[in-house]
Amino acid sequence: MTLRHSRRSVMALGAAAGLAPLSTSAWSQERPERKLGYAIVGLGQYADVILPRFAECRHSRVTALVSGSPEKARRYGAQYGVPDHGLYDYANFDTIRDNPDVDIVYVILPNGLHHEYTLRAAAAGKHVMCEKPMANTAAEAEDMIRACRDADRKLMIGYRCRFEAGNKEAIRVVREGEIGAPRIVTADHGFPISPNQWRLNRALAGGGSLMDIGIYSLQAARYLTGEEPVEVSAMESTDRSDPRFAEVEDTINFQLRFPSGAVANCVSTYGSHHNRYRVTGTKGWIEAEPGTAYGDNTLRLHRDWQTRPHAVPTGQNQFSAQLDHLSICVMTGAEPLVPGEEGLRDMRIIEAIYRAAREGRSVAL
Amino acid sequence: MTLRHSRRSVMALGAAAGLAPLSTSAWSQERPERKLGYAIVGLGQYADVILPRFAECRHSRVTALVSGSPEKARRYGAQYGVPDHGLYDYANFDTIRDNPDVDIVYVILPNGLHHEYTLRAAAAGKHVMCEKPMANTAAEAEDMIRACRDADRKLMIGYRCRFEAGNKEAIRVVREGEIGAPRIVTADHGFPISPNQWRLNRALAGGGSLMDIGIYSLQAARYLTGEEPVEVSAMESTDRSDPRFAEVEDTINFQLRFPSGAVANCVSTYGSHHNRYRVTGTKGWIEAEPGTAYGDNTLRLHRDWQTRPHAVPTGQNQFSAQLDHLSICVMTGAEPLVPGEEGLRDMRIIEAIYRAAREGRSVAL
Repeated sequence: MTLRHSRRSVMALGAAAGLAPLSTSAWSQERPERKLGYAIVGLGQYADVILPRFAECRHSRVTALVSGSPEKARRYGAQYGVPDHGLYDYANFDTIRDNPDVDIVYVILPNGLHHEYTLRAAAAGKHVMCEKPMANTAAEAEDMIRACRDADRKLMIGYRCRFEAGNKEAIRVVREGEIGAPRIVTADHGFPISPNQWRLNRALAGGGSLMDIGIYSLQAARYLTGEEPVEVSAMESTDRSDPRFAEVEDTINFQLRFPSGAVANCVSTYGSHHNRYRVTGTKGWIEAEPGTAYGDNTLRLHRDWQTRPHAVPTGQNQFSAQLDHLSICVMTGAEPLVPGEEGLRDMRIIEAIYRAAREGRSVAL
Repeated sequence: MTLRHSRRSVMALGAAAGLAPLSTSAWSQERPERKLGYAIVGLGQYADVILPRFAECRHSRVTALVSGSPEKARRYGAQYGVPDHGLYDYANFDTIRDNPDVDIVYVILPNGLHHEYTLRAAAAGKHVMCEKPMANTAAEAEDMIRACRDADRKLMIGYRCRFEAGNKEAIRVVREGEIGAPRIVTADHGFPISPNQWRLNRALAGGGSLMDIGIYSLQAARYLTGEEPVEVSAMESTDRSDPRFAEVEDTINFQLRFPSGAVANCVSTYGSHHNRYRVTGTKGWIEAEPGTAYGDNTLRLHRDWQTRPHAVPTGQNQFSAQLDHLSICVMTGAEPLVPGEEGLRDMRIIEAIYRAAREGRSVAL
């Protein structure tokens, strides 16, 4: 499938059933349950978050596990009902091509391994869900998009917040003009990082707080405004005498300018806890704190001089909604809401932010 | 009194009664009421905020009014008990030197007139309270400091928030380590500006949102960290086709780096309402929203995974506390908490922020 072909498919689907994210939900309501099989690559902390959510999926099930530890693979296999022939290690991973129960490979490895395992999964004929950040560099991201396109496989990035009810509601409030024209986005994300982990290793992480947690501020600014930044500035603050930050940055705050004139003021740090965003428009603001947590994201809306709690609609949890979205896209041929190209956009902006901080000047995009 | 002499006076007072801001409060408790006389220069909107607060002052009273409108001067004089011989216009203002009931001149004129009226007040032998921003430029501010020093008169800038209970409490919480070491300050200030007013005239305002309202974000970042920034970056966003912004900027967001490694991410805008700050440290955060309003500033403290309302101590309102502070400084010889030098520090940073935005690069201070 060429890129042009793929775009035509999306347009055809769009004509039939509205925009892609809505269409997959509508599709799901009308179909009997059919579940595609996922292989989970990497049984770290985030796999512990993802694996239990398959129980709430309508169209996704876990059929394979990939781990460097045979013992861990067997233990997780027993827990999540994966048969022994669905257990792989990193050496024999490519034989997954012969496993018809695996439709999608979900790459939950450290960032520096995303590129390799996306390419190997595509070469094995599997569709790919890849965690964010998509790769260590934009060049790697381009390569991953090309590999999946050439193999005629879907590539989706794990931007779970796009499937989370609070974030979806905040986007709706902004798009429908309830706060007027967006003017200022503030988005703060961070946590105090513990020592001795892959996120502090440049080769495995690609960078510091910006790659891991600041990307949530960047994403929020983009999906809340619905615009692409045309200019970035940034200021880094890292105590290089702190052994945690020998290789990667601690704090890197950044600013984005959007074509409408809206601007975003973003925090990214490994020094303290931050998880919130606010979009202020000409008529009021909508805020989330926490904004991008695994659960309990909470909205407040300010209009007419009053601040009120704003209800988050109920719905499928963000993790299973994300898994099912890609399954439905594979089954229908629709383009994912957050394809590889979306991950690449973030990577290009991230590289511009690093450059702006390094050179002490704003960078045009 | 030379600068050296003045500094000795402060040190003597400090030795006797602790640091200056505390000492003036302690001094007030022990003294019978003695009220110095203020001349209010400029009967605009902010004078309407200040004038009623003399009723709550222990050491300050209004004894003169300066206005371009004789009718307005008489009307305000009747309302606030100022006799006819205490009413001046801008032409005869200098004769205020002959009015022994006036100790202090409070300049509440548009920014572009602060320099002239501070110099004329000092030449008339009066102490000066000058509204913020102190002047249109740092060069003007230096000139004002020199003029008051040469005339042996006090010069204080109207940074009312330094006398406001919520801001004082937030500073105390940070200084006493209740949120750990400060890492990130976010401070957002703005309002949608109405057309046809002096704030939109470059000659009278000196600049746009940064001079008028963004200065609150700058001040908050400085007094909450207790540090001076060593580097600034900034991003301006102004729709020059909007007739309001033919001469001055709309949005100018800026970032500050402090010597400790703490950074501030600040919003300044004439496009939408913003009035809040948060200081996040290694152990938690303290937040105010509103943070720098005329009243009802409200604190929340986050520690140990819990966010709770944080009580604001009761005390004298910020306006009368500010007025009395300068009166006490004049009576005791103490240096004001926010002297001309404090206004000059802001002006120098403001000029660096403008330069950073204009040149698209970070500026060292």
